[in-house]
Amino acid sequence: MDKERFEKQLAFILEVDKEKNILRQSHLSGYVRQENDAEHSWHIAMMIYLLKEYANEEFDVAKAMMMALIHDVVEIDAGDTYAYDTKALETQKEREKKAADHIFGLLPDDQKEHLMELFEEFEEGKSPEARFAHVMDNLQPILLNDSNNGADWRLHEVNKRQALNRQKSSQLGSIEIWEFAKELIERNVKKGNIKEDI
Amino acid sequence: MDKERFEKQLAFILEVDKEKNILRQSHLSGYVRQENDAEHSWHIAMMIYLLKEYANEEFDVAKAMMMALIHDVVEIDAGDTYAYDTKALETQKEREKKAADHIFGLLPDDQKEHLMELFEEFEEGKSPEARFAHVMDNLQPILLNDSNNGADWRLHEVNKRQALNRQKSSQLGSIEIWEFAKELIERNVKKGNIKEDI
Repeated sequence: MDKERFEKQLAFILEVDKEKNILRQSHLSGYVRQENDAEHSWHIAMMIYLLKEYANEEFDVAKAMMMALIHDVVEIDAGDTYAYDTKALETQKEREKKAADHIFGLLPDDQKEHLMELFEEFEEGKSPEARFAHVMDNLQPILLNDSNNGADWRLHEVNKRQALNRQKSSQLGSIEIWEFAKELIERNVKKGNIKEDI
Repeated sequence: MDKERFEKQLAFILEVDKEKNILRQSHLSGYVRQENDAEHSWHIAMMIYLLKEYANEEFDVAKAMMMALIHDVVEIDAGDTYAYDTKALETQKEREKKAADHIFGLLPDDQKEHLMELFEEFEEGKSPEARFAHVMDNLQPILLNDSNNGADWRLHEVNKRQALNRQKSSQLGSIEIWEFAKELIERNVKKGNIKEDI
């Protein structure tokens, strides 16, 4: 064992522990509290494995799962950016690039490069793995929100156009799940959980 | 899309959300609060991908990661059993078998069978994936505990024999990480965080 290499890997593993303290806007099913990034990432990695049969394209499952597990680590430095916060979205890319340099930079060079690639691929949706990971990243919060009778949509007064816009990248990874997401949103518009467009 | 099949998959995905509420005895790095099962599973799945070069045997990475992600779902029904609670350990198997039947039973039959297999393989350490997943399941809490200057060992008055016993399955999955774990324990015995054997 190369001890110096192993120590770098452990430094990264300890640093990302902080992701357990980064809260998202969305709440757990049951609405007891907000969800954190680590829990969310656990959930979507598992969903990739379970729902892979609905992907538009074949993909490397381990790669997609790892992408899901690390897609939010930059928020340790950059914070969570809420999907409907237009002001924060403007500076998100820059803040997250800087965070990625720091956090992935803890790893040995080969793994730093590999994880940077996974992160960028995810951000840009430029591989089958990234496109399917995005479907899960989109689907998971609407499943929780739907189970809470739309409490988060109501809290943030989300309208149908916004909700659909947030899901639209799903069609690139899974036409079937995109169709399901549209139905779920329509059902919540009917219930008054999501506002009709103005 | 087979709607009935998809609804079963979603029912499982929603049910396991409850794992985010199951607390472990171990604390996060920084000791702000106890860790929950979902966060722990996220951490070890990522560690499998990052540390796979130290495994004794070649293994299927996606399979091992999924095993890690689901290895604690039975605790939703059966509760967390602390590694040093000898009384709870006696009834653990029976409680967890019943829980597995219920939780994995939410899935379509083929996926129910597959996840039951992954879970049992992990429990019995009977595949290369299971043996390496155990190494990570053993390593993760001692890394956090070491970063907290052994606070959890001190709280539970753990001795060296117990700490080593908790790690011993690691040698079946990674001789190199088992050697590291022994060093880490020795270091914490010297610091007085782990008691010398009686």
